[in-house]
Amino acid sequence: MHKPLVGIVMGSASDIEIGRKIYEELKFFNVPCEITVASAHRTPEDAANYASKAHSRGLKVIIAVAGLSAALPGVIAAHTNLPVIGVPVAAGTLGGIDALLAIAQMPPGVPSTSVGINGAKNAALMAIRILALEDENLRKALSEYRKKNEEKVRDSRNKLIDVPTAPPEAFF
Amino acid sequence: MHKPLVGIVMGSASDIEIGRKIYEELKFFNVPCEITVASAHRTPEDAANYASKAHSRGLKVIIAVAGLSAALPGVIAAHTNLPVIGVPVAAGTLGGIDALLAIAQMPPGVPSTSVGINGAKNAALMAIRILALEDENLRKALSEYRKKNEEKVRDSRNKLIDVPTAPPEAFF
Amino acid sequence: MHKPLVGIVMGSASDIEIGRKIYEELKFFNVPCEITVASAHRTPEDAANYASKAHSRGLKVIIAVAGLSAALPGVIAAHTNLPVIGVPVAAGTLGGIDALLAIAQMPPGVPSTSVGINGAKNAALMAIRILALEDENLRKALSEYRKKNEEKVRDSRNKLIDVPTAPPEAFF
Amino acid sequence: MHKPLVGIVMGSASDIEIGRKIYEELKFFNVPCEITVASAHRTPEDAANYASKAHSRGLKVIIAVAGLSAALPGVIAAHTNLPVIGVPVAAGTLGGIDALLAIAQMPPGVPSTSVGINGAKNAALMAIRILALEDENLRKALSEYRKKNEEKVRDSRNKLIDVPTAPPEAFF
Amino acid sequence: MHKPLVGIVMGSASDIEIGRKIYEELKFFNVPCEITVASAHRTPEDAANYASKAHSRGLKVIIAVAGLSAALPGVIAAHTNLPVIGVPVAAGTLGGIDALLAIAQMPPGVPSTSVGINGAKNAALMAIRILALEDENLRKALSEYRKKNEEKVRDSRNKLIDVPTAPPEAFF
Amino acid sequence: MHKPLVGIVMGSASDIEIGRKIYEELKFFNVPCEITVASAHRTPEDAANYASKAHSRGLKVIIAVAGLSAALPGVIAAHTNLPVIGVPVAAGTLGGIDALLAIAQMPPGVPSTSVGINGAKNAALMAIRILALEDENLRKALSEYRKKNEEKVRDSRNKLIDVPTAPPEAFF
Amino acid sequence: MHKPLVGIVMGSASDIEIGRKIYEELKFFNVPCEITVASAHRTPEDAANYASKAHSRGLKVIIAVAGLSAALPGVIAAHTNLPVIGVPVAAGTLGGIDALLAIAQMPPGVPSTSVGINGAKNAALMAIRILALEDENLRKALSEYRKKNEEKVRDSRNKLIDVPTAPPEAFF
Amino acid sequence: MHKPLVGIVMGSASDIEIGRKIYEELKFFNVPCEITVASAHRTPEDAANYASKAHSRGLKVIIAVAGLSAALPGVIAAHTNLPVIGVPVAAGTLGGIDALLAIAQMPPGVPSTSVGINGAKNAALMAIRILALEDENLRKALSEYRKKNEEKVRDSRNKLIDVPTAPPEAFF
Repeated sequence: MHKPLVGIVMGSASDIEIGRKIYEELKFFNVPCEITVASAHRTPEDAANYASKAHSRGLKVIIAVAGLSAALPGVIAAHTNLPVIGVPVAAGTLGGIDALLAIAQMPPGVPSTSVGINGAKNAALMAIRILALEDENLRKALSEYRKKNEEKVRDSRNKLIDVPTAPPEAFF
Repeated sequence: MHKPLVGIVMGSASDIEIGRKIYEELKFFNVPCEITVASAHRTPEDAANYASKAHSRGLKVIIAVAGLSAALPGVIAAHTNLPVIGVPVAAGTLGGIDALLAIAQMPPGVPSTSVGINGAKNAALMAIRILALEDENLRKALSEYRKKNEEKVRDSRNKLIDVPTAPPEAFF
Repeated sequence: MHKPLVGIVMGSASDIEIGRKIYEELKFFNVPCEITVASAHRTPEDAANYASKAHSRGLKVIIAVAGLSAALPGVIAAHTNLPVIGVPVAAGTLGGIDALLAIAQMPPGVPSTSVGINGAKNAALMAIRILALEDENLRKALSEYRKKNEEKVRDSRNKLIDVPTAPPEAFF
Repeated sequence: MHKPLVGIVMGSASDIEIGRKIYEELKFFNVPCEITVASAHRTPEDAANYASKAHSRGLKVIIAVAGLSAALPGVIAAHTNLPVIGVPVAAGTLGGIDALLAIAQMPPGVPSTSVGINGAKNAALMAIRILALEDENLRKALSEYRKKNEEKVRDSRNKLIDVPTAPPEAFF
Repeated sequence: MHKPLVGIVMGSASDIEIGRKIYEELKFFNVPCEITVASAHRTPEDAANYASKAHSRGLKVIIAVAGLSAALPGVIAAHTNLPVIGVPVAAGTLGGIDALLAIAQMPPGVPSTSVGINGAKNAALMAIRILALEDENLRKALSEYRKKNEEKVRDSRNKLIDVPTAPPEAFF
Repeated sequence: MHKPLVGIVMGSASDIEIGRKIYEELKFFNVPCEITVASAHRTPEDAANYASKAHSRGLKVIIAVAGLSAALPGVIAAHTNLPVIGVPVAAGTLGGIDALLAIAQMPPGVPSTSVGINGAKNAALMAIRILALEDENLRKALSEYRKKNEEKVRDSRNKLIDVPTAPPEAFF
Repeated sequence: MHKPLVGIVMGSASDIEIGRKIYEELKFFNVPCEITVASAHRTPEDAANYASKAHSRGLKVIIAVAGLSAALPGVIAAHTNLPVIGVPVAAGTLGGIDALLAIAQMPPGVPSTSVGINGAKNAALMAIRILALEDENLRKALSEYRKKNEEKVRDSRNKLIDVPTAPPEAFF
Repeated sequence: MHKPLVGIVMGSASDIEIGRKIYEELKFFNVPCEITVASAHRTPEDAANYASKAHSRGLKVIIAVAGLSAALPGVIAAHTNLPVIGVPVAAGTLGGIDALLAIAQMPPGVPSTSVGINGAKNAALMAIRILALEDENLRKALSEYRKKNEEKVRDSRNKLIDVPTAPPEAFF
């Protein structure tokens, strides 16, 4: 098994549904990763240590998943120089806008970046784009993935039934 | 079959429920339309091409349906001079306010206009109003439609049961 | 002087700054328009009459400008079959989100569409796109306008000073 | 049967659940009322006429119920001098904040006031408070109602089970 | 001098700008009023007493003005059966949305109603509409006021300069 | 049975689910408490009395639970010098943001503090932290609790199945 | 000089205006405090150490002041068992709603509580209420403070000029 | 001069203040960059071309700066496999929440990530963290930067005047 390049840290094991989607997307691209739990508030030392050791352990990117006041991505970013991608989770009753603001609105100097609420797939893809900078195979895989997505959209046109559809010459 | 005058473009085939309602409203008015899928992000060239070719293909109005960051109406508007009506979809966890803002808050110079969240019917009616400018029959149909809606509201008063209702002289 | 094709109705004379920008954009395209004041709440009959008479007076599009609870576009739309474009104004203390919701979130059956908050220019351009459907000269003017906007963006690159800029081959 | 003193106008028959709760609260206080449907957008003349005739028909207060862009209370207020109470309905996907803003944020000069979202009971009680200004019996009924509510709250303390509760001397 | 019919209570003397506008509107209609300060939090007994004594002192309507968490209108409403109109003030940094929610979102049983943020004029007018139910002169004054507002809107059309305006036949 | 140190006041018996969670957390720490109902609007005197008597009855902290316009914590705080912790409840259709703003946005001079929406556990823990200032045993219990929470997070890592997990050396 | 009982930690020295107001309020009550800067993101170890050492250094309450994603109060709370009061600062462009959510919406287990946006005074008063639990003099000072606030409100009534005011018997 | 590694694309030349801050931060780290203008709506082909050519031109990261409906980061991300960082600009009247949502809430498959509103510095730092993955010098520079930021925070403690401050042993 390959050494993980992406560390997925969830603020709570209850975020596993999001965590697993990130993992599956990474796996689809053959990007080795690890997934764990470290709370910014209940295990702050673990969160700090995980971030501090990440680089020497060979990780390249950390994806931090958290809901509510979502301090995890920022805490991770404070303890490492690796790029940190935050995934705001729609926990609680406000649809995740609390977590999105908490992750994106970081004070200047310590960057975490946010994908959309519950945005597991895009977090994985952002990590992959970063890794692809030095991995020609991965870059090709991304290009193929984009082509496949393109094909899927085009195929979906053919599955529209009982409605008048646009002919091919509408596009080409 | 008549050549379509309204092009309905959905950002994803998963928006079909909204798309179909638009289609059905247009069909009710005998306005020929076509419905298709083109993603601003997954098939940007298709979206651009669809918009660019729309005028020469005979389309008069484009209705663009999208959720989340909802870039489709703006991308369509950027590639055509036809009027573009955006329909924000309540995808995700924020009730569609993200899509409404994305569609309405266009920078000056490239207009897309927004109907309400999930506002399929009104998008169709706005397209019909535009087409009716040069179609006397359609204009009459709109007038009848308004009268029928008026009647429906009035009829609905008679269906209020187990409550004291207002007499006709309250209105006339 | 040509007969006005676009009617600009402001809910209050205090919206004149927005109204004038709409007028100037229309004038730039040689689209004759008229501008007036009719309040959905203070002169509801005038607003209704203006809308009712608009078609027979030769108007093709109505642009309704209003802030706060912004009922004007909906009231106008209720009394005409012409296309109605609403411009939410940032009056009051909430930045215009109240007006944007009031204009866009119309119940099904009576469509008004919304441009962005204070979106004078885009309202004018949407009206022009509608008129251009039957006016070849206007359509050409829109194409030229888009080209000029394109040029302006490109020219603005040359005005970036004291920063390293991208070379032409970054784009072409 | 007594002549209605409160007119309940719903923007759509689909608001009947709210309308019926208002009616039941009024009935509990023996306040005669009538309930009807008039849409600010689909039957604007009816809405205007209903408001215009309300005073001469003997109505004292109008309660207007509407969701989404909720123009009805304002349109009613524009056509009568009677006090108008708006009830924002949580239609659509934004929890009713759109309707609350539309009702409350009226421009100066034409007042409608808003109770809370889906606030049927409070709308009825506000109407009753207005009527009680000239009806000694109603005022007494309101005082009894308040006492009963007080009793209900106090009784509810005795129904707390499996938890340690506060003794009477905590309050008296 | 006449006995006050409307009591204006401000949560803080710093709300005097809003309070004075309410007073001036009432004065314009010759409605006697009084204005005072009572804080729901700093002088809760005064607020309660003011509300409790209001009816026997001859007041008919209470207008409560408050910003931030704006508990005053609800506290007043809890201690009287008179109709209570709340005016949310845009204190603090959120534009007054906090106060609007606090006033409108009252739990069922104790009604306060809200006008718009900083809505001094409409609060006064709502009070006047209530008083006009039993005051024929006031009702006539309201009708004249509406006519004057109508005239003002119409006159404002004549003051639009340097823009093409709509002719009278657009309305009549 | 020990004299209660924490008073839990709910604005309505319907908040009992939140109230019970607070009680259970306090019970877990052997902190005696009492739970009751007092509405800021339906039983304002009870709420005021409960607060006024709280100190002499031996209470140290009051936790006030309320939804919608959530005036209870502020009313309690206005009648006592004890620390007051507010718990905003997600009643209604806005997810509790109304209650959070009502509790936190208190005007200067009368402090209530807010935990998160439906934040029963944290309200209890805040009360315990306050009590632990003078209770060495409680302070130790808090330290153990934190350690147990730490352990729970760490244990949860071992329960991640079907995904690659981080090794212990990632943290230690 | 007395040993500080309250630690005021600001996330940035730019929050000094808020910090100083807290200090001044505490000073007014003769509560010794200290004020410092520790960023959750730029000096996470300092923030953690400050919190960890606070109890043994004799502090009783920590007030944490932060804007934007405002992680500081939570980070402090994670490293101490002392009560932590957060003050959300209106930094950035969203009026401080980001900071309020970040502070209040803490996940269960680690409580921070929030006063209002920029709520320096109330944060100080909450700390004082906690300290007053074991300090009879402070409790008396709080009672006097409340009386003075009461007087101030009452005095402010006399300073209302050019408006009709309520007589003393409106309250007593 | 070194070949640029980071491309900064602004949706409008009016965003130059943000763009320049990004540039200055990159320059401070000796990271060569280029800055340009390409509008998602006014020059969509340029935006697409810039993105498509970016990799072959040697760019590693693209920072896209845009306000209002902020489609630029998504459009860029749709045409490249490079990592894209979006900077939402507080243009318009909503404080930039529109742009933040537009950038973060991307549909799955095409990732853009968002820093905070007007978050120039953090966008630059995120880009630098990505580049530092393969640049040991840059990684050291980041570590030094973090240390300097740490020092700055610590130094700022000494500049607090006229307030009692925490002693060194509070931290170490």
